[in-house]
Amino acid sequence: MRKRKASGAPPLEPVARNGLLHRRALLTGGVVFAGAMSTGAALNGAAAEPLKDPEWSLMPGEVTPVLQKPSRFEAGVVRILSNPKGEPRTQHARAPLQMLDGTLTPNPLHFTILHSGIPDIDPEQHRFVVHGMVKQPLEYTVDTLLRYPLVTRKHFVECGGNSAGMFSNEPVQATVQQLHGLVSCAEWTGVPLSTILDEAGVDRKAVWMIAEGADDLLVSRSVPLKKGYEDAMIALYQNGERLMPGNGYPMRLLLPGYEGNMNVKFLRRLMITDQPAMTFYETRNYSPLLPDGKAYRFYFVQEVKSFITKPSYGMSLKGPGYYEISGLAYSGSGTVTKVLVSADGGKTWGNAAVEGPATPKAFTRFRMSWRWDGQPVTLTSRAWDDSGAVQPLRADFVALRGVTKEPVKSPYAFPNQHYNSLTAWGVDSKGEIQHVYA
Amino acid sequence: MRKRKASGAPPLEPVARNGLLHRRALLTGGVVFAGAMSTGAALNGAAAEPLKDPEWSLMPGEVTPVLQKPSRFEAGVVRILSNPKGEPRTQHARAPLQMLDGTLTPNPLHFTILHSGIPDIDPEQHRFVVHGMVKQPLEYTVDTLLRYPLVTRKHFVECGGNSAGMFSNEPVQATVQQLHGLVSCAEWTGVPLSTILDEAGVDRKAVWMIAEGADDLLVSRSVPLKKGYEDAMIALYQNGERLMPGNGYPMRLLLPGYEGNMNVKFLRRLMITDQPAMTFYETRNYSPLLPDGKAYRFYFVQEVKSFITKPSYGMSLKGPGYYEISGLAYSGSGTVTKVLVSADGGKTWGNAAVEGPATPKAFTRFRMSWRWDGQPVTLTSRAWDDSGAVQPLRADFVALRGVTKEPVKSPYAFPNQHYNSLTAWGVDSKGEIQHVYA
Repeated sequence: MRKRKASGAPPLEPVARNGLLHRRALLTGGVVFAGAMSTGAALNGAAAEPLKDPEWSLMPGEVTPVLQKPSRFEAGVVRILSNPKGEPRTQHARAPLQMLDGTLTPNPLHFTILHSGIPDIDPEQHRFVVHGMVKQPLEYTVDTLLRYPLVTRKHFVECGGNSAGMFSNEPVQATVQQLHGLVSCAEWTGVPLSTILDEAGVDRKAVWMIAEGADDLLVSRSVPLKKGYEDAMIALYQNGERLMPGNGYPMRLLLPGYEGNMNVKFLRRLMITDQPAMTFYETRNYSPLLPDGKAYRFYFVQEVKSFITKPSYGMSLKGPGYYEISGLAYSGSGTVTKVLVSADGGKTWGNAAVEGPATPKAFTRFRMSWRWDGQPVTLTSRAWDDSGAVQPLRADFVALRGVTKEPVKSPYAFPNQHYNSLTAWGVDSKGEIQHVYA
Repeated sequence: MRKRKASGAPPLEPVARNGLLHRRALLTGGVVFAGAMSTGAALNGAAAEPLKDPEWSLMPGEVTPVLQKPSRFEAGVVRILSNPKGEPRTQHARAPLQMLDGTLTPNPLHFTILHSGIPDIDPEQHRFVVHGMVKQPLEYTVDTLLRYPLVTRKHFVECGGNSAGMFSNEPVQATVQQLHGLVSCAEWTGVPLSTILDEAGVDRKAVWMIAEGADDLLVSRSVPLKKGYEDAMIALYQNGERLMPGNGYPMRLLLPGYEGNMNVKFLRRLMITDQPAMTFYETRNYSPLLPDGKAYRFYFVQEVKSFITKPSYGMSLKGPGYYEISGLAYSGSGTVTKVLVSADGGKTWGNAAVEGPATPKAFTRFRMSWRWDGQPVTLTSRAWDDSGAVQPLRADFVALRGVTKEPVKSPYAFPNQHYNSLTAWGVDSKGEIQHVYA
């Protein structure tokens, strides 16, 4: 068996500086791909020796369990907890996005934020009530909701405070999980909220609905009634199975594209009203401050955003050669239509492959082919959606929203909310990766 | 708070006999939905009393774990094992499809069949080799494959023996999980096989590839080389995370739409050749017998199929009123374009809602609105795909493929392979559900 080596294949078509390549050629180009490997000696790190029979090919394997779990070799693929002992305050669990691929977050790894622990709710006992400015207040159980017409849709949920470390005036050295792990994407199934609103008969003067959860803080948020008629649902299933306890079992409000905290978990009440409740989580905790000391009154939408997950901080490149750059893009205001990737810190850009079918308010995976020549480069990405929204450049974002005066020490601090500007990774000549502001 | 009761809403538009309803009216019809509930007293089984604070609303909840798991109230949502003690023979684990919704099977619940246990493979040590009729034999590690251009696609995998109990001359009384649980659907991410074949440089005279797994049986299957250039991939991720051990960790061959056993797990070898290997699994175990005693030589494609998951055997209807009929449709030859549902055993049919975007060779969820009047009915479904294929009626299927002479006693028996005809559920006046042949 021969090692792969340089071929006489024609050079690949570059799409931007520092080695960004045209992907189609790689996927359909025959020997061209071997050509792409021409500097990729490290790809042949495996000894080119005859195929051996390792121990697992010589003895029967393990017994099948009723529930599968990941290989013991994937034991590091877990969420990071901000308050691992569960002291009586908020617990954040961040998803290991840089270790995942595709567009879904497996349920065990879906991010969660709990302000007072995970309630242990008996679905037979749980009740959900719609009341306030309606013709007839109504009460539902899980069983009754499961008899309604259901819909299934793939959507991300993101904490308004995700990526808060990016408000630091100097880049925090941290992984994608630490910086951006408070977002996940799942296929949700539930009852369209419009069905329930129609059944209750909403007063024409109503403008808001106050959603309340059954956790012991009774987390409450005000939601524009209009969203209830657009794409809101009462979600009962997550990636095919019933909701995870930390994601709102047995039912949650799902408001596609709106900040996570509004997607009230353990939903027990919707009060239809003509004014917002001005609760803690909307007036203080999730109100982004502006440089002049004022704050947005409400800030619901998680705006268009992208970041490269691979390669990223914490990984290192094993020598020059071919790599795939890949990452996540999503938008609370529509469907991702375009992602550009740069390997020179934003001077030149190439069109990334956006995998489809891209759907509204859902993770979209983008991929860019890249041949690294071993010189320092700066990788970054920028996304567009079909509403016309574009991810703001960092200079523009900072001018509007500000940064801290002192460097933020921890990626888990929340100096501000709703960061959706760019993330950049600096690769040095050794292949080590730093978080940089490009 | 009032109980919901009959309104003066106009009657819903029927689309077929025995209560099949037009879904759009239900989802957009205001009070019309309350009208649909007019016979649904059981929907109000919950006492219409003021909202109380249950114990979980009065104390802090549980500590957040690094890996989430389902609520203890969902402890019954597990796979059924055919050989739970792991005696030295095949183990089947069937997915609880009637307890799930949407289009994905969570990884812990994805069906598996292991012929000699689950190998405990160290991904650092695992090697995959392409050899035979190629210009240069090549060897890959997990790490090298992860540097290639990846693709993400949602596809079902189904055992050729799924639904084998349907070959019984009398209907086996069994759940969807027992009858049809050897199929699942996931979002897979991996390297297109065509990239690897192109890199190795396949001889023009080659027609087949022999795939071999690293389990101790070295499970081997012959695959038409053509499939390798169509949509085959070497899958590394399943629903976002690395493959489950029982689904082929660290890598498997994925042949969208081809019978499960050909999607060789723990892939360690592809030998490119000009003839099939005629291995055990293709010449004996997965060769469907015909009534005249002959057998198909090869039978690769899992043909278009559907079945109703809710309501189904093992559930019971709690009185007359509105229910949603829902189920799964999929096809190994294309994208599901249409599903019809009947409530009178196939005499009249209504168009079910097919949720989108429907994609090729993937689970598609269909839904039909239904008002049960309390009389006996027979529910069934039938699917079409964009290749023009249609799920065969049972009489036609049986005429071609035959049935057993004696009733099959166990839903886990395999009298034959590749059943893709209809499944019907008989609902009696008490709401009890039997498996019937319509």
